[in-house]
Amino acid sequence: MGQKYVYYFGADGTEGNAQMRGLLGGKGANLAEMSNLGISVPPGFTVTTEVCMEYFRLGRKMPQGLWEEVRANMNRVEEEMGARFGDPENPLLFSVRSGARVSMPGMMDTVLNIGLNDHTIQGLIKKSDNQRFAYDAYRRFVTMFGDVALGVEHSLFEELLEKKKEELGVKNDTELDAQALQDIVVQFINLVKEKTGKPFPEDPMEQLSMGINAVFNSWNTPRAVTYRRLHSLPDDIGTGVNVQSMVFGNMGDNSGSGVVFTRDPATGVKKLYGEFLINAQGEDVVAGIRTPEEIANLKEYMPDIYRQIDSIGDNLEKHYRDVQDMEFTIQDGKLYILQTRTGARTAAAAVRIAVDMVNEGLIDRREAVTRVQPEQINHLLFPTVDPDADLEVIAKGLAASPGAAVGKVVFNAEKTEELAAEKEKVILVRTETSAEDIGGMNASQGILTTRGGITSHAAVVARGMGKCCVVGCEEIKVNEERGEFTARGKVVVNEGDHITINGTTGEVILGQVNLVRPELSGKFAILMKWADEIRTLKVRANADNPHDAEVARDFGAEGIGLCRTEHMFFGGRIKAMREMILSDTTEGRKRALEKLLPMQRGDFKEIFIVMQDLPITIRLLDPPLHEFLPQGKNEQQELATEMGMSLEEMKAKVENLREANPMLGHRGCRLGITYPEIYEMQARAIFEAACELVNEGFTVIPEVMIPLVGHVNELRFTRELVNRVAEEVMAEKKVNVKYLVGTMIELPRAALTADKVAEEAEFFSFGTNDLTQMTYGLSRDDAGKFLPYYVEKGFLQNDPFVTIDPDGVGTMMRIGVEKGRMTKKDLKIGICGEHGGDPKSVELCYQLGLDYVSCSPYRVPVARLAAAHAGLKDAAGILRE
Amino acid sequence: MGQKYVYYFGADGTEGNAQMRGLLGGKGANLAEMSNLGISVPPGFTVTTEVCMEYFRLGRKMPQGLWEEVRANMNRVEEEMGARFGDPENPLLFSVRSGARVSMPGMMDTVLNIGLNDHTIQGLIKKSDNQRFAYDAYRRFVTMFGDVALGVEHSLFEELLEKKKEELGVKNDTELDAQALQDIVVQFINLVKEKTGKPFPEDPMEQLSMGINAVFNSWNTPRAVTYRRLHSLPDDIGTGVNVQSMVFGNMGDNSGSGVVFTRDPATGVKKLYGEFLINAQGEDVVAGIRTPEEIANLKEYMPDIYRQIDSIGDNLEKHYRDVQDMEFTIQDGKLYILQTRTGARTAAAAVRIAVDMVNEGLIDRREAVTRVQPEQINHLLFPTVDPDADLEVIAKGLAASPGAAVGKVVFNAEKTEELAAEKEKVILVRTETSAEDIGGMNASQGILTTRGGITSHAAVVARGMGKCCVVGCEEIKVNEERGEFTARGKVVVNEGDHITINGTTGEVILGQVNLVRPELSGKFAILMKWADEIRTLKVRANADNPHDAEVARDFGAEGIGLCRTEHMFFGGRIKAMREMILSDTTEGRKRALEKLLPMQRGDFKEIFIVMQDLPITIRLLDPPLHEFLPQGKNEQQELATEMGMSLEEMKAKVENLREANPMLGHRGCRLGITYPEIYEMQARAIFEAACELVNEGFTVIPEVMIPLVGHVNELRFTRELVNRVAEEVMAEKKVNVKYLVGTMIELPRAALTADKVAEEAEFFSFGTNDLTQMTYGLSRDDAGKFLPYYVEKGFLQNDPFVTIDPDGVGTMMRIGVEKGRMTKKDLKIGICGEHGGDPKSVELCYQLGLDYVSCSPYRVPVARLAAAHAGLKDAAGILRE
Repeated sequence: MGQKYVYYFGADGTEGNAQMRGLLGGKGANLAEMSNLGISVPPGFTVTTEVCMEYFRLGRKMPQGLWEEVRANMNRVEEEMGARFGDPENPLLFSVRSGARVSMPGMMDTVLNIGLNDHTIQGLIKKSDNQRFAYDAYRRFVTMFGDVALGVEHSLFEELLEKKKEELGVKNDTELDAQALQDIVVQFINLVKEKTGKPFPEDPMEQLSMGINAVFNSWNTPRAVTYRRLHSLPDDIGTGVNVQSMVFGNMGDNSGSGVVFTRDPATGVKKLYGEFLINAQGEDVVAGIRTPEEIANLKEYMPDIYRQIDSIGDNLEKHYRDVQDMEFTIQDGKLYILQTRTGARTAAAAVRIAVDMVNEGLIDRREAVTRVQPEQINHLLFPTVDPDADLEVIAKGLAASPGAAVGKVVFNAEKTEELAAEKEKVILVRTETSAEDIGGMNASQGILTTRGGITSHAAVVARGMGKCCVVGCEEIKVNEERGEFTARGKVVVNEGDHITINGTTGEVILGQVNLVRPELSGKFAILMKWADEIRTLKVRANADNPHDAEVARDFGAEGIGLCRTEHMFFGGRIKAMREMILSDTTEGRKRALEKLLPMQRGDFKEIFIVMQDLPITIRLLDPPLHEFLPQGKNEQQELATEMGMSLEEMKAKVENLREANPMLGHRGCRLGITYPEIYEMQARAIFEAACELVNEGFTVIPEVMIPLVGHVNELRFTRELVNRVAEEVMAEKKVNVKYLVGTMIELPRAALTADKVAEEAEFFSFGTNDLTQMTYGLSRDDAGKFLPYYVEKGFLQNDPFVTIDPDGVGTMMRIGVEKGRMTKKDLKIGICGEHGGDPKSVELCYQLGLDYVSCSPYRVPVARLAAAHAGLKDAAGILRE
Repeated sequence: MGQKYVYYFGADGTEGNAQMRGLLGGKGANLAEMSNLGISVPPGFTVTTEVCMEYFRLGRKMPQGLWEEVRANMNRVEEEMGARFGDPENPLLFSVRSGARVSMPGMMDTVLNIGLNDHTIQGLIKKSDNQRFAYDAYRRFVTMFGDVALGVEHSLFEELLEKKKEELGVKNDTELDAQALQDIVVQFINLVKEKTGKPFPEDPMEQLSMGINAVFNSWNTPRAVTYRRLHSLPDDIGTGVNVQSMVFGNMGDNSGSGVVFTRDPATGVKKLYGEFLINAQGEDVVAGIRTPEEIANLKEYMPDIYRQIDSIGDNLEKHYRDVQDMEFTIQDGKLYILQTRTGARTAAAAVRIAVDMVNEGLIDRREAVTRVQPEQINHLLFPTVDPDADLEVIAKGLAASPGAAVGKVVFNAEKTEELAAEKEKVILVRTETSAEDIGGMNASQGILTTRGGITSHAAVVARGMGKCCVVGCEEIKVNEERGEFTARGKVVVNEGDHITINGTTGEVILGQVNLVRPELSGKFAILMKWADEIRTLKVRANADNPHDAEVARDFGAEGIGLCRTEHMFFGGRIKAMREMILSDTTEGRKRALEKLLPMQRGDFKEIFIVMQDLPITIRLLDPPLHEFLPQGKNEQQELATEMGMSLEEMKAKVENLREANPMLGHRGCRLGITYPEIYEMQARAIFEAACELVNEGFTVIPEVMIPLVGHVNELRFTRELVNRVAEEVMAEKKVNVKYLVGTMIELPRAALTADKVAEEAEFFSFGTNDLTQMTYGLSRDDAGKFLPYYVEKGFLQNDPFVTIDPDGVGTMMRIGVEKGRMTKKDLKIGICGEHGGDPKSVELCYQLGLDYVSCSPYRVPVARLAAAHAGLKDAAGILRE
């Protein structure tokens, strides 16, 4: 094979570049790229990924000719560094690191300080004038090499180290002096001999060769194989091996190490940001034993080096057209850049940097939009805990809905509503919430529950309301009778006490903490405008009251994609609703529905007025009727008295409506078919509201949505019902309203027979929550016992209730879209439900050719940005298949 | 248009034949066919179905030239009958009947006695010498014609008739004398004039023309259109119109009417079977006012006519190669065959006739197999109530599992087991049953419940056991404390009293009724052998104990397709099972599982021995754990004491396991993944049993089935677990057992990702019960509130839990089969669950290319026959697409 195995990088003729990721791996390509830019990186060479695959083909043997190339490149490094590998006087040391085309963080092996032995250690001591440093380097080398290249378990080295510390009565490694470390090196070397039956390899060339092999071998360790399987990465791309000269920042006061960002990663302001230590290695900067200094101070110690860093940063930023996060080492007055990478940043900084860079001419608007991750901006939309505040965290639960909230603890929904009416700020604390708590949840500043996961009722509703929420906080025990809760068994908080909850971290904090308000105008608005110019997928919001509708409009929603009507039946309306449910006759139900009609008509009018000229998808009653009945004995007794029934009759009624699997029960259009008077009332309320407003000069675009359709016959019946009522009302009101009737696609059967369903539908809206439940056979309420385990152990890559499962649910949706548009080419198709605000799911919706996504109002900006990203990825041809 | 509109039939040159169903409709083609055979049918003619469509194209007008053809054919009839249409002396009368290519029973209109008016009635009186008969015919004519051709509501005629009867103080129409009928005719004619504003048409030709139009019009009535939609019949095939001369069997003692079968429809014995009346019309034979005589007696009255009938029957049977059910009329010594059709017959007769006809050389074996409907033979497999017994039916419920059973009433499962152990025959009577009742159900003769539908627990389990069962018998109220039940609020039955239940009709009968045992050898066995020679689809049974396995083998099962393991954990094992569930640690669970291991191993051994050399698919634990815990307070207290827990702890445990939607909860392989020790124990039990038996010289073919797989990762994990345990056990026992590991496909996601799932599966088995629940989003336990309504109102054509929904669930299965075999071309695929014994579902499975169906042991013969039918239909090219 005449191919080239090894690529050099350094001042003296770099052979690779950034485009060669496939051949050199990510790290190798980047080192080459920096060298090409004239930046001083410690010189070295990369053994290609092709060699890795050849190595395995040959049965874990290096291909012929490789070693010669390695030696030749090593000599070039020696020349450039003015030191020699294995030289006891002036030893050159190498690091050996993996580097595949795709980063597999922590999965593969590294060995540092290759080249150390009992001879070269003397040279290192001399060069560094630091015996302790040298022996520390040595013992680290023996540990790493022993573990990685010789298969001696890491824990055995640790044990010896611990024993030594015990002997000396010290706690930290740093307290071990040079002598102790030297002793340890001897023990380590003996350990290796004992375990492997062979002496520790002293020959630096043998060390290097074994180090390279070890990195190759780490490509096929079980954990690496599993990682690739979980991330759908191919097995045959192999890893490169980067052999790079070691440099040391702890060679005296003319040396040092640091980390620097080209812009402030917290604010995005353009100035060098970072820290450094004189006479220290890079790891000391982050270890926190010595306090590093701000990078600005480097100007005083080494003005020239500072200028170099500033200039390199500038060049790298221009080259990579993004903020750089650089690690540097100064060895004996010479600056080496060890690594540069795109700088991580806060959401606020990301927005500012993206907009600034457009203004600086570094990137265009399309690129700016890609620079801010949709998930990130979620943090910008909510108040947050003041980062400078002192916090007394008393418990931690699951972060269910972002933002922070401060208020008085209250344990029930009614009281929350009462206090909120008196302008009190309240945190509603409950074991778990149910539909009856909606009013209180809405009136609260935030919600804290002790049970349930991030898809529990409390979490879902809170996200919909954009309300801060912490759930499943099992460290808290609520004692409602005593009016208190206990955190971690010690802190007792009484009703009325102030707490602060952080829905972004899950923290529960004692007292009132200062909150920071979000900033949504300025550069944020500019960036969102650019995103809107790019995207084609429309974004609507889920809202069922005027307040949410207003928030949705403010956040840029282009309509309401899901207006649930069941929330409208709680609060003051619950009585009439219960009367309806408890009636045994159609007549009785109709009487109760007549009471609900004007209320519901009023609800619709308010929302229509807020959203006017934008479409509003109204879903007719969906949940099973038993959700509206009280479950507790006292409440049942109360209601029974009110209704003139005996408690026994009431219980029998409730029992009769009980369902083994309510998710799969008598709900959705099944209710509308068996009790058509309910949907008739709802349709009447919609069209009376619409007609009255149109007569007043408003524009109203209602889209009536039928839930839980499984068979076209169900849709045909309910659609005919809605059309009939619409015509009646329009005739009564002498006005015409344009409207659509469509259906949720939330049952697998609806998707599978979408060609037939589309005959009766003027639009589809995927209800991906239920579709996921049915496709997986997975109840959101019950998944807590195994779903977190599944995600943690990699059975599932994502929680399918957070991100649409592309293989299962996504395939179902694809079938639904294809069959639906087979019947109606231009069928309008959207998605409503939690997934509509998840960026990966938005991307999938774009790929499936949907017209819009709908999500909670507070997720609308996220969805807008995600939709723009999907469009940009598509244009770039990088949407996953 | 030069086409022919009208086809004549009669002695004088019949123009059609049986092949012309499309053009002449079914009835017309049959009349022509009989005429061709030289059988004397009342002559007449058929207006083609094409004319019908032309009629509608012309805007409900007869095409030009039709009337001329009608007149010409009418003249031929007059010639043949020696009477004239409209002749006051010797009037010919016509019937006008519809007849489409496909029978649409009761959907379209008929008019009899066309040609009557105030003149021709005199001729009819003279000819019949029976004034009452003539006026009765007249008033029937006016009623039918008024209703069908003139649109006067039928009820208006009825009202006048009732009034007349009141006037005369009589109850039945038959008590009206000639004078009264004559008065009524006058009233009817006046009614028509009043309602239509025109005189009743007197002109026979006008009557005929209007009658033909009326039959055409009935093709497009809403009920006919709905019928076609529901039965997927095309709208554009139209109906023919048959105009046939009327003959009368009540013209004196030389006339008569009767009905005759060519073989005994109850037993299948070859002899004329039927009855007749002298001087009577056909309707009198069935009306029951005069008692008809046995057909054999006709030999004495009219020996020649009897011989003619015998000979015609023989000819028709040979011609149609099937039993004929003929209606005949003798008018004045002349025999007319009015109709012949395939004779309905009992299951027993069907089997005998099919086998006899092969022996007679009339049909071949393949045809014989098609002559017995799979559903029919179900009745042959169970004891039945003696048809001659006097029954005191005290209540009626839903027929849930066929057959009949006699026994003493007992209200709980334990007592049932006790009494059964003493050889008592017991009927278990409960409000509803649960998993805890399995032992008692098995020990009983039959089961009666007062709640639940035909897919309730009791029904499903009883069918699985082949045990007679009546469910949802709401006419019975059980009072367990008093040890009695009350039927229809009056009959009180005490525990220990005998009752008989009929699972084929749903009847509950007081006392001990004589039962008739089924006959499964002889001709039944011959027919089943022929079916087996034809079919390619294999049939297995669902069985989880040696008794069921034995029944399955006896009924011809070719293996066990579903051996549930959860039933094995009840009875004596429930204690250890509960101990396992209540343990908080893996260790505790393992200890409890160790107790279960030998029991489960024993279970498997017994089944392996019964089924040896046939494959056995064993499903690992599927239901959620809470199903094994007691729900009542007393039982919880008892268990708590036993386990050394407090009642509160016990309640908390039970509460903790409670699920909102157990169907979608922590069950199936989700249990096996979170508690791998459970599946490990089960795998160990299977392979220990298998290895021990193989060492004893048996052949054992275990197929381990993983339930509720949604993602291939779940199957990979559990399969590796099973393989590991299998290898361990085989190494311990020093023997090799061939086995497979496969999965249920019961979640939509498994079907949608079947290509991936197949990578880890050695077989698939569709769990169509759950697959239907998920695809429809429909809980079998909760569907009672709307599913019956859906089926009744035509929203769904079939109950999807009885017959696989071909469009939804069938499509899901097709995807599963195609994707699965994309990965593994020869993947073995079956179906287990209730549908496996439903003939239409068996046909679907055949179409989908499945290898086998599995059903309850008692349905195996049904499935075998259905599988043969599917193969025959396929060969004939008549499987529906």
